Amino acid sequence: MNTSTTQVISPTELLAHWQGHRNLTRRTIEAFPEKDLFEYSIGGMRTFSGMIMELLGIGAPGIQEIATEKIGELNEHFEGINQKEQLLKLWDEATEKINTYWEQIPEERFGEQITIFGRYQGTVWSSIFYFIDNEIHHRGEGYVYLRSLGIQPPFFYER
Amino acid sequence: MNTSTTQVISPTELLAHWQGHRNLTRRTIEAFPEKDLFEYSIGGMRTFSGMIMELLGIGAPGIQEIATEKIGELNEHFEGINQKEQLLKLWDEATEKINTYWEQIPEERFGEQITIFGRYQGTVWSSIFYFIDNEIHHRGEGYVYLRSLGIQPPFFYER
Repeated sequence: MNTSTTQVISPTELLAHWQGHRNLTRRTIEAFPEKDLFEYSIGGMRTFSGMIMELLGIGAPGIQEIATEKIGELNEHFEGINQKEQLLKLWDEATEKINTYWEQIPEERFGEQITIFGRYQGTVWSSIFYFIDNEIHHRGEGYVYLRSLGIQPPFFYER
Repeated sequence: MNTSTTQVISPTELLAHWQGHRNLTRRTIEAFPEKDLFEYSIGGMRTFSGMIMELLGIGAPGIQEIATEKIGELNEHFEGINQKEQLLKLWDEATEKINTYWEQIPEERFGEQITIFGRYQGTVWSSIFYFIDNEIHHRGEGYVYLRSLGIQPPFFYER
């Protein structure tokens, strides 16, 4: 892909940035004791596995929808997932899917107006930024869960 | 500024994106009871005001440093700040400072290699993304503090 050298960030750089965050989120999942991943919460919030399922429902399906321009339904619930290994497997499958569909989004489409999941209006870039920001947000919540369990979370700056 | 229409995100769009997040962070500060803002924490972590001071030490000084190319020291501590109003005033001053210095960063500098605060190597864009991501991360932590205090945080998607 012929990318301009004067732009803020290229599609390839944005993908690497996100996958760096996704790697950190994966290590945050790993840091949870299996039981706490599915049962622990603070202040009536969701469990960390519940948040991760939301992220799984948004990230790869969102990129697929942007790439294929076929609108899908937002599904943040996954039946029968109650083991850390299952969650990590879904996470890794999403990693591949994001890489695959990302390649199919031409650079000139990032400014295009879309309605993601048939519901949320924005541009391609603002939708993708939302996926990333939402992941950082929930992972930050997960860091407090870990700290309150006496567990050191992975370093935020290591991707 | 003459920006290409085919790029992922323009400098103006990135600034608006960040200031939207900064507005949400401001409302998160406001949502804390004054005492809890300066005293409440979970799992041995910092108070939310402590995290906000880190963000104040990074955001506006970081943009100033990028714009002026004069390396500053990282200072995440502010003496004598013990009221919400003081913190919000510093936040609003930082908002203006970021807007002012942002205008002085030409688009072609976003890919430039820098060592921010004389310490952290990256590009202009990756440094700015770090400022934003770090803010989202700590605000996510603040959301758990609020929830555990029985307080509804502002909606994540409202900027």
